[in-house]
Amino acid sequence: MTRISCFGVHSARAANDDPDKMMYTFKRGEAEGTKEMKHTLGGKGAGLQEIAALGLNVPPGFTITTSACERYQSKGESFVNVDLWPDVLRGITFLEKTSNRTLFRSGCTPITRLPLFVSVRSGAAASMPGMMDSVLDIGFNDEACEACITAGIDARFVYDSYRRLLHMFGDVVEGIPSEDFARALDAKKKSIGASTDAELTSDALRELCDDFKRIYEQHKIQFEQNPLEQLRKSIVAVFKSWNNPRAVTYRKINNITTLRGTAVNVQQMAYGNLDDNSGSGVCFTRNPATGQNVIFGEFLLRAQGEDVVSGARTPIDISQLSATLPDASADLKRACAALESSYSDMMDVEFTIESGTLFVLQCRVGKRTGAAAVRIATEMAAEGCVTRERAITMVPTRSLEQCLHPVFTLDANSDEYVTRVVTRGLSASPGAAVGAIVFNAKEAEKLSSEGKPCILVREETSAEDVGGMWSANGILTSRGGMTSHAAVVARGWGKPCVVGASGIHIKNGKELRFDGSDKVYRQGHVISINGATGEVLDAKLDTRASTIDTFLPLKTLMAWCDDARRLDVRANADTIEDALEARAEGAHGVGLVRSEHMFFGTPERVRAMRAMVVAQHDESALSAALETLKKFQYDDFYGVLKAFAGYPVTIRLLDPPLHEFMPSAEKLREGAADEIARDVGKSSRDVMDIAKDLQCANPMLALRGCRLGIVRPAISTMQVRAVVEAAMTLRNEGVAAMPEIMIPLVSTTREFTHQRDLVLDVIRLVAEERQEPPLRIAIGAMIETPRAAFIAGELVREGACFFSFGTNDLTQTTFAMSRDDSDAFVAPYKTMGILSEDPFVELDDVGVGELMRITISRSRAQEIGGKSIEFGVCGEHAADPASLRIIDRMDVGYISVSSHRVLVARLAAAQASIANGSKPHARASKHRHVASHAA
Amino acid sequence: MTRISCFGVHSARAANDDPDKMMYTFKRGEAEGTKEMKHTLGGKGAGLQEIAALGLNVPPGFTITTSACERYQSKGESFVNVDLWPDVLRGITFLEKTSNRTLFRSGCTPITRLPLFVSVRSGAAASMPGMMDSVLDIGFNDEACEACITAGIDARFVYDSYRRLLHMFGDVVEGIPSEDFARALDAKKKSIGASTDAELTSDALRELCDDFKRIYEQHKIQFEQNPLEQLRKSIVAVFKSWNNPRAVTYRKINNITTLRGTAVNVQQMAYGNLDDNSGSGVCFTRNPATGQNVIFGEFLLRAQGEDVVSGARTPIDISQLSATLPDASADLKRACAALESSYSDMMDVEFTIESGTLFVLQCRVGKRTGAAAVRIATEMAAEGCVTRERAITMVPTRSLEQCLHPVFTLDANSDEYVTRVVTRGLSASPGAAVGAIVFNAKEAEKLSSEGKPCILVREETSAEDVGGMWSANGILTSRGGMTSHAAVVARGWGKPCVVGASGIHIKNGKELRFDGSDKVYRQGHVISINGATGEVLDAKLDTRASTIDTFLPLKTLMAWCDDARRLDVRANADTIEDALEARAEGAHGVGLVRSEHMFFGTPERVRAMRAMVVAQHDESALSAALETLKKFQYDDFYGVLKAFAGYPVTIRLLDPPLHEFMPSAEKLREGAADEIARDVGKSSRDVMDIAKDLQCANPMLALRGCRLGIVRPAISTMQVRAVVEAAMTLRNEGVAAMPEIMIPLVSTTREFTHQRDLVLDVIRLVAEERQEPPLRIAIGAMIETPRAAFIAGELVREGACFFSFGTNDLTQTTFAMSRDDSDAFVAPYKTMGILSEDPFVELDDVGVGELMRITISRSRAQEIGGKSIEFGVCGEHAADPASLRIIDRMDVGYISVSSHRVLVARLAAAQASIANGSKPHARASKHRHVASHAA
Repeated sequence: MTRISCFGVHSARAANDDPDKMMYTFKRGEAEGTKEMKHTLGGKGAGLQEIAALGLNVPPGFTITTSACERYQSKGESFVNVDLWPDVLRGITFLEKTSNRTLFRSGCTPITRLPLFVSVRSGAAASMPGMMDSVLDIGFNDEACEACITAGIDARFVYDSYRRLLHMFGDVVEGIPSEDFARALDAKKKSIGASTDAELTSDALRELCDDFKRIYEQHKIQFEQNPLEQLRKSIVAVFKSWNNPRAVTYRKINNITTLRGTAVNVQQMAYGNLDDNSGSGVCFTRNPATGQNVIFGEFLLRAQGEDVVSGARTPIDISQLSATLPDASADLKRACAALESSYSDMMDVEFTIESGTLFVLQCRVGKRTGAAAVRIATEMAAEGCVTRERAITMVPTRSLEQCLHPVFTLDANSDEYVTRVVTRGLSASPGAAVGAIVFNAKEAEKLSSEGKPCILVREETSAEDVGGMWSANGILTSRGGMTSHAAVVARGWGKPCVVGASGIHIKNGKELRFDGSDKVYRQGHVISINGATGEVLDAKLDTRASTIDTFLPLKTLMAWCDDARRLDVRANADTIEDALEARAEGAHGVGLVRSEHMFFGTPERVRAMRAMVVAQHDESALSAALETLKKFQYDDFYGVLKAFAGYPVTIRLLDPPLHEFMPSAEKLREGAADEIARDVGKSSRDVMDIAKDLQCANPMLALRGCRLGIVRPAISTMQVRAVVEAAMTLRNEGVAAMPEIMIPLVSTTREFTHQRDLVLDVIRLVAEERQEPPLRIAIGAMIETPRAAFIAGELVREGACFFSFGTNDLTQTTFAMSRDDSDAFVAPYKTMGILSEDPFVELDDVGVGELMRITISRSRAQEIGGKSIEFGVCGEHAADPASLRIIDRMDVGYISVSSHRVLVARLAAAQASIANGSKPHARASKHRHVASHAA
Repeated sequence: MTRISCFGVHSARAANDDPDKMMYTFKRGEAEGTKEMKHTLGGKGAGLQEIAALGLNVPPGFTITTSACERYQSKGESFVNVDLWPDVLRGITFLEKTSNRTLFRSGCTPITRLPLFVSVRSGAAASMPGMMDSVLDIGFNDEACEACITAGIDARFVYDSYRRLLHMFGDVVEGIPSEDFARALDAKKKSIGASTDAELTSDALRELCDDFKRIYEQHKIQFEQNPLEQLRKSIVAVFKSWNNPRAVTYRKINNITTLRGTAVNVQQMAYGNLDDNSGSGVCFTRNPATGQNVIFGEFLLRAQGEDVVSGARTPIDISQLSATLPDASADLKRACAALESSYSDMMDVEFTIESGTLFVLQCRVGKRTGAAAVRIATEMAAEGCVTRERAITMVPTRSLEQCLHPVFTLDANSDEYVTRVVTRGLSASPGAAVGAIVFNAKEAEKLSSEGKPCILVREETSAEDVGGMWSANGILTSRGGMTSHAAVVARGWGKPCVVGASGIHIKNGKELRFDGSDKVYRQGHVISINGATGEVLDAKLDTRASTIDTFLPLKTLMAWCDDARRLDVRANADTIEDALEARAEGAHGVGLVRSEHMFFGTPERVRAMRAMVVAQHDESALSAALETLKKFQYDDFYGVLKAFAGYPVTIRLLDPPLHEFMPSAEKLREGAADEIARDVGKSSRDVMDIAKDLQCANPMLALRGCRLGIVRPAISTMQVRAVVEAAMTLRNEGVAAMPEIMIPLVSTTREFTHQRDLVLDVIRLVAEERQEPPLRIAIGAMIETPRAAFIAGELVREGACFFSFGTNDLTQTTFAMSRDDSDAFVAPYKTMGILSEDPFVELDDVGVGELMRITISRSRAQEIGGKSIEFGVCGEHAADPASLRIIDRMDVGYISVSSHRVLVARLAAAQASIANGSKPHARASKHRHVASHAA
């Protein structure tokens, strides 16, 4: 169903998506598919359809669908030979007709013009750069070369193209090691004194073709001379490459699970290597590292596209294109504008210029750093290209984490800094990184697994290095441009990266030297790189996170988010430091203070906690230990409450089972027991016995939460006392401390009332002691057992003022699935499609969600006399975008997230509200209803 | 509010229960309280009110309420002195007026007739025999004795009574060791050559009183001469005794948790020791050991009640009373008939005959053995005294467990048996017991805690021995009658007991000898006792459970139960033996075959299972191990299906985490790893590593249930194949095998569909292999996670035909409470009243119940096209009466219980239906709907 290009009615085209159709053609101004059909046509295929539909100059071609790949995976090669082949032949006919060129056929009459050569490129729905295979220049063979030259076509071009085909086909289709060809190429260049491919003469290239064919012979393989067979075999090879190890690894790392396979794009070759007015390039419609609104990219003359992205030759900046090829440059600018407008986003464009004519070969939404994402979104909104809502949804939450990338603590203008700079490269991906030099991916993975930060230093990177790049703290290359493999991948991950640092000289993959110095650096030497400036420093610098205040676009975006979101955002903060960070990031209160976390801080705190644990029922030892603990708790609560003056601070009473505060059995045997025994004046045997008694069969379901506070009420009493005293002191100092007490792991009403009474008794007692009016403190419960949901109404009747959903534990109990044990089946479940997502990552709407809704409706039903129950979510899910879409639809007031994820939560909450069409309302009614018992 | 006795309108009287009223009077024909007011008046008090109301001859008295005791516990002695005292004085005035006797007052004019003496007896709402204190003969003092003798009252009686008061008051009120008095009594008897108390002369008794007073002096205590003070102090002592250690222990053992305290009964003394026409006795209206309908009991002439129950003198059989005191005997028969009729139950009656006049002192529902309970219930129904429904509810389920008490495998008529009998006693509580002789309670507890069975041998037992009696397998005493402490307590527990075996001579509490032999038996020697015949054997005999067929009343009762119950009863059976037992006990199918339990049977099975576990992903080792396992499974399934031909047999696929099949880490280190390694041809290191990998943080929430079957489908496939092949073979043999497959631990729909498809594939495959029509097998799921409840409707749509509630796991997940860890807080929770019952014992209606109701309603909503989903309960709760009342109210079709609890479940289910008024319906639609996928 061919369709004439018409801007703006893309959605209507989507109706043409036919599940049985396995091939979609496109040419300038005409496209059978649409840009929305990524799932069927892959990202590249859908982009090509759009380029064609927009009327941009695209070499004609056709896309074989991902379903075809899926069928190939189950039926094997016969699927291509039998089921798919008629479509391929129809496609070739379309290409021959459209291009007015003919695939070279053996024994035909002599040709008069360039035959049809085609590329076969992979392209899945999700971007997997360089992970799968492509074959270019299909159609060349011995006879075709001769015929072309006879027809007067430039011999250099002909043999250059043919050697490329021989190389790629040998590598991709026949499995001949790519290095064999590379070695022969290097030998040839050496033999004629050429330093770049471009310097190879036509004779040298012809001889190279012969060399390459000899490599085939060495591998006992006959080079396929039949163009149609070349095509068929290439299609099969691309299908196969879907499941090659590096593609599988990439999908795993990037959590790509739902795709059917890769699409295959067969397209007329446009030749960047045809003549001196030819070239290839890649560009972004805006700067992908910073977001600046200027076309950003590189090109190479007399080169095919792979020469640019391989990083083998350092390309020329795109700003120089207008001087070299002004018409093509102007066309490129127009194409960029059209694509950005069509996609309402920053685009990544590949192009080839053949004899001065621009061909757009590929477009896709451009990868960008977190900072660029924020800047592009806010600027496009300011330019009126997109709405503010669209701007908010354009920024993936994970970019935000990268956005405030680390910077060096050392001032870049200081002498100390400047003198340590040993070389400079291109600032491919911002952020400061420090680590030991490693020269290969494997070492990077090894060091990283040992917890040692490292910087991967390579001449250039390729798909094989992905695992090591992921492991390294930063990436540094001596070759390649801003769109080289290293740059693209690093930016995608927000990992600091410097590329094209040509002053680096790596020797034997074992040592390096910087220009201007003889000093030799070996693996393990620590360097620092600055991805924002391209500087490389021979120093082990300190880094710190950068702050929102220093990056205006982020402040703008956050303000828009705050207007758009319905959910209030609070932080989980266990220390004063956490609290201060959270406040700085705009948290509207603390939704969860894990009162026990405060005891992991220093050895003396750990010691005090252990003294409490081993005191057991020895009243005097227990009260001494609690007295020590109370001092710590008082200071911490004082600090956190003060940091959040005017905002609610929800303090959860002791939650984990006590054995968590003890060393492991092994460590106890190895001396830890003696140490504790000395501290508390017991025998080591006693300490071991107590530790053994504390062991649980299922710690998650054992003596913890309010059960501890009930069975050992002295602990709760101490904690509440610390809260109350801190808050009363602050009140006297004129600080609006707003503590709230949260009872954990409630599953029966009487557990709640027991702890409620304990809290109220302490409040009354402290007030009497200090002869001051009693505090009003809201008391609430954590909803983390299914039974708590069912009794929520009763809890409200008993005075609960708020509930916080502990969705981690609620998930564990709802599924009967322990977070510490679920790896053994959640991973295979995802592979098998039994779970679409790990329920500890994405909130389960069916089970956990239902329990949350039950809690809310039963609580609301008890709201009488002006009571208003507040609901929060304080599990990990609160910072997950998909989960937030579910939570936003509930009558929940706030979410509470780790202090360093407050920004992410503000963004994700806004995105959820936009996705759901939720009305943002007046948030943060800071003064909660406090049940009358506290009056 | 005094009320004139009128039969049959007791319920109306209950309205008189006034929460502030602390004292209730009664006299023959008039009672302020009713028999229903046990909670307020205690069992004894409520019984006395009823005796009075029935017009039986009762000494007048008054009952101080349990609330008074409760208030005493919190306010202390001043409560008695201030708040309660006016009521006590009013009570005494009532007694003086009614009895026409006067409490002796010092310095009064000489008396002319017997003054008023009173008893102060404890009595809680639940029977706690001998656990709390009583004081009798209050009112005697030096002056009163003289005055009585002056008035011509028998001096022997006077001093006998006075020495009793001195002893009891000293013991109970003043804390003087009872042994001091006992020693003095023995010394006195010895000095005059008396062997029983009755032989003591009045002079001896007078001297004894002086001796007793000297004991007071030795303890620097002045005996309280003021009768009103005696009374006050005695009331306080009784209140105090509520919390003495043995009472607390007894309540704990018997799970008595909700009582407020003990009531106190102050009553005019009737004197069984007044003259030769006086005596005291106890009787049951029917035989409490066998249930036979004849008055059963004992009496002692010239004795107070405590002489009978203490076991110090062996009493005379009640059948001899008519010859001795015919009028009193006839009155007793009438009283028994009246009480049985009023209570519709077998009664335990205490009486005193004072100068030929019968006084009924106490009545309560009689404790009985399990067998007696069944016989009494069925016979009373047959006699028309009670309805069949009442008969069913009269039998506590725990009696049923005792009902089929163990018997010796050795024929009692065989020479081997007969020659081993060394002595005979009274058959106080039936059942055969075998164990090592122990002479005191402490040793019994010790041996029992080490897992060694023992027989507690004592001259007589007292309240101090309760812990040891509970621990022992059987109890044997040389003194005491059928109503002695040992007999009553043992019958209550259904523990084999022989009492009054006077041929036993215990020396120094360290060794014993039987009459007619010089052989000395020491602790540790194993003997056997037959509680049904009273025989004691010097032999270590084997025992076995007796069967329903040998006990007709039980068969009758079960038939009535089957008519009355709504729930069908199936069994959990993991082996062929279990299945055969369950079938014999009337199970209508197997509700749960734990397919993995079959592998714990023999070492070779354990070995095969371990081979499977350590095979991991080694395909060939795995399939070899599975092949071995399949043979075992096939045989087991074949046997179980055959035993239950015509009934459904629900087979649950492998459930527990695999580490459960491996030895512990310690045992692995100690050689088990080497052994397994040899078996499977791996290194010990590998075996240890695999075992370590299998460890879970929270096994309950880890890789188990269907997760195993999905991640390692070969296991499920093997199990299903074994089921299908066994069933098809049986089909060919003409046996109606009805296997059903149950998927465990489902929490997502796709888990169910995965395993469903696996089952269907195996069914199809086996049918093709055997060229027979495929089996139709119902596939269902175990509902044991909260999420499973929420998706029940979806599961039905996906073809689930039945659901079985695994209430153990569902309780664990609903409460987030692990059964293996809950001891640490459930016990204190019960003490503190946070939980009224352990939710693993009694089903939680609020949380677990709601999830069950959700499951049912969502499933029923999907019942279309004639589908009918069946629901069962297969957790431990299915045999708990309180839980069954909850389950019976749900739309559940059957319960499934351990094979040896089938009888209990049939009874408990009937009781639940009666309690709920549920309509029994046509049960056991054996042919379940099988979803169309299996067609």
